[in-house]
Amino acid sequence: MSDSPTTVDPADWVCPLPLRETKRIVLGHGGGGVLSEELIENLFVPAFGSSAGRDSAVLSSQTGRLAISTDSYVVQPLFFPGGNIGDLAVNGTVNDLACSGAMPLALTAGFILEEGLEIEVLGTVAHTMGRAAADAGVRIVTGDTKVVQKGGADQLFVNTSGVGVIPAGVDVGPERVRPGDHVLVSGTIGEHGVAIMSVREGIDFGTRVTTDSAPLHELVATMLFTAGPAVHALRDPTRGGLVAAVVEIARTAAVGVELDEAAIPVPDAVASACSFLGLDPLQVANEGKLVAFVDPAHADAVLEAMRTRPEGAAAVRIGRVVDSHPGMVVGRTAFGTTRVVERELGEQLPRIC
Amino acid sequence: MSDSPTTVDPADWVCPLPLRETKRIVLGHGGGGVLSEELIENLFVPAFGSSAGRDSAVLSSQTGRLAISTDSYVVQPLFFPGGNIGDLAVNGTVNDLACSGAMPLALTAGFILEEGLEIEVLGTVAHTMGRAAADAGVRIVTGDTKVVQKGGADQLFVNTSGVGVIPAGVDVGPERVRPGDHVLVSGTIGEHGVAIMSVREGIDFGTRVTTDSAPLHELVATMLFTAGPAVHALRDPTRGGLVAAVVEIARTAAVGVELDEAAIPVPDAVASACSFLGLDPLQVANEGKLVAFVDPAHADAVLEAMRTRPEGAAAVRIGRVVDSHPGMVVGRTAFGTTRVVERELGEQLPRIC
Repeated sequence: MSDSPTTVDPADWVCPLPLRETKRIVLGHGGGGVLSEELIENLFVPAFGSSAGRDSAVLSSQTGRLAISTDSYVVQPLFFPGGNIGDLAVNGTVNDLACSGAMPLALTAGFILEEGLEIEVLGTVAHTMGRAAADAGVRIVTGDTKVVQKGGADQLFVNTSGVGVIPAGVDVGPERVRPGDHVLVSGTIGEHGVAIMSVREGIDFGTRVTTDSAPLHELVATMLFTAGPAVHALRDPTRGGLVAAVVEIARTAAVGVELDEAAIPVPDAVASACSFLGLDPLQVANEGKLVAFVDPAHADAVLEAMRTRPEGAAAVRIGRVVDSHPGMVVGRTAFGTTRVVERELGEQLPRIC
Repeated sequence: MSDSPTTVDPADWVCPLPLRETKRIVLGHGGGGVLSEELIENLFVPAFGSSAGRDSAVLSSQTGRLAISTDSYVVQPLFFPGGNIGDLAVNGTVNDLACSGAMPLALTAGFILEEGLEIEVLGTVAHTMGRAAADAGVRIVTGDTKVVQKGGADQLFVNTSGVGVIPAGVDVGPERVRPGDHVLVSGTIGEHGVAIMSVREGIDFGTRVTTDSAPLHELVATMLFTAGPAVHALRDPTRGGLVAAVVEIARTAAVGVELDEAAIPVPDAVASACSFLGLDPLQVANEGKLVAFVDPAHADAVLEAMRTRPEGAAAVRIGRVVDSHPGMVVGRTAFGTTRVVERELGEQLPRIC
């Protein structure tokens, strides 16, 4: 988990008005007139940098393949233990790019705001995004703001889209997964979903669980530097958790996966919260973890390299790819029995990202 | 106006179920589980192509500068004369890229859906987006869907972000505008905003006004092929209309602009609707027009080239850049007097895009 963006507190941010008399978003802030310009100049430019107000941005000359990704964020509440919707949105898109093997180059930020939203809330979120982007070494280069009438949206939604460059020789994707590959996870799972649930439901699980939201592109770069093409596939287990990520790769690659359930690192606080709520921690969202499918001859070296970085310090091997039951994931339980691991039909926790 | 996407009628589209029993969006469609996958495979992949379901997409090798743009669309109603939110979203992002001198390469589509939305509505919008993208020669390469509970959003919002390549030697931007430049507009103005207003308010203006939504990148390519660096700046006058676009360029370039108001092409139906509603047609949104600032020695040639294309057939000269009153736009009225042209504080018509 990155320290800096998660330490932003709404109280830290001072609204750099004058945005006219209002302290709340009005429809005119989305109208393309003077109020829109004031919002851009007084709020987004200080948060994101000077180019964020233009309709499009020009990036300098690049060679190589590009990765492109988009995600909208609708998490409720907007602020939760360890972060807010802003760093979640930046890290989430950085991680989608990283898991395609790309170094993130630039992000966009598209806001949909509910009329009446406190401008300070928007300012805090934008400021957090700016800090998270700086921490991840990526720029927010352009943006857009729309305002809908009160009741037409739930406070604040943000879309982050991103472009990254895939270095020459890098080729990660589910189609490269082979029987025998080891399955690694970069750390403990389940924190993000439980952190959201704890504030949403007002439940105290004894130990405070905070989101694991963090950018993973430097961890990925370390892994690729260590083992290059032996890193076959990467995926960040967000919505649907570890299970959705592994099942999706098993299905796309048409291979079987056997998970060693006892090896999957679930923190005690997450386990007890999930037990209390009747949730499967393997299906709870993470926002700063990745699953890697690696050639077995290089798996130890990759694990060791992952552990040299804070966001990979707790990396472990959790399973392997098999040539039976293609498209299916089975879990070996602590009792030595196996069970089929399947995704939820819908979701356990709505609006966790 | 492009014909094909605007002829899509909700009735044309047949829902390619099975998406379980439901004909409506449920929270689980945004949950990252089986329902999410079914929505992607049965609805988005047929609409956008096979890569649209992945978290990120890889684009083939490119050289040159990149342009990147983002826009969220919250227009109400979703369907209006001449189009719907889908082609609006595709053309809008294509046009932002085009106005930075780029040829669009790929788009992303990020949906925020209200629980209970009819799946057929989503399908029609996605299908329209796929057609509009094909018409514009651009691919929708990746996407994301979030679902919020009933009342948490107004039916359907979509974000389109895009990446384009700026050809070597192309350099358009407000900072290149010089006193003496001629100001051109590619056609009649005010149609989009009036089309939305007519259905929203149930007002019949005698003649049916349809949106002008259309992709402009080929028009831009024609202009750049004709006059190259003599095309100084381009802008699509969307929210805030012609006035907002010209004022923004005047302010950024620190030049004055004098508009010949009698030369600005306002269709009779738009003029009478605006007169009835108390709106200024110069401040009503357009979705298939551009304003160009061109070196005076090349302005005639650029106008002639614009008129060879259907989306530029009604192109005219509407003003010029002057070295007095920097940052200010004045209009010369039909009576020979001048007035200062200023943007609205907020907006005349909310949620027109």
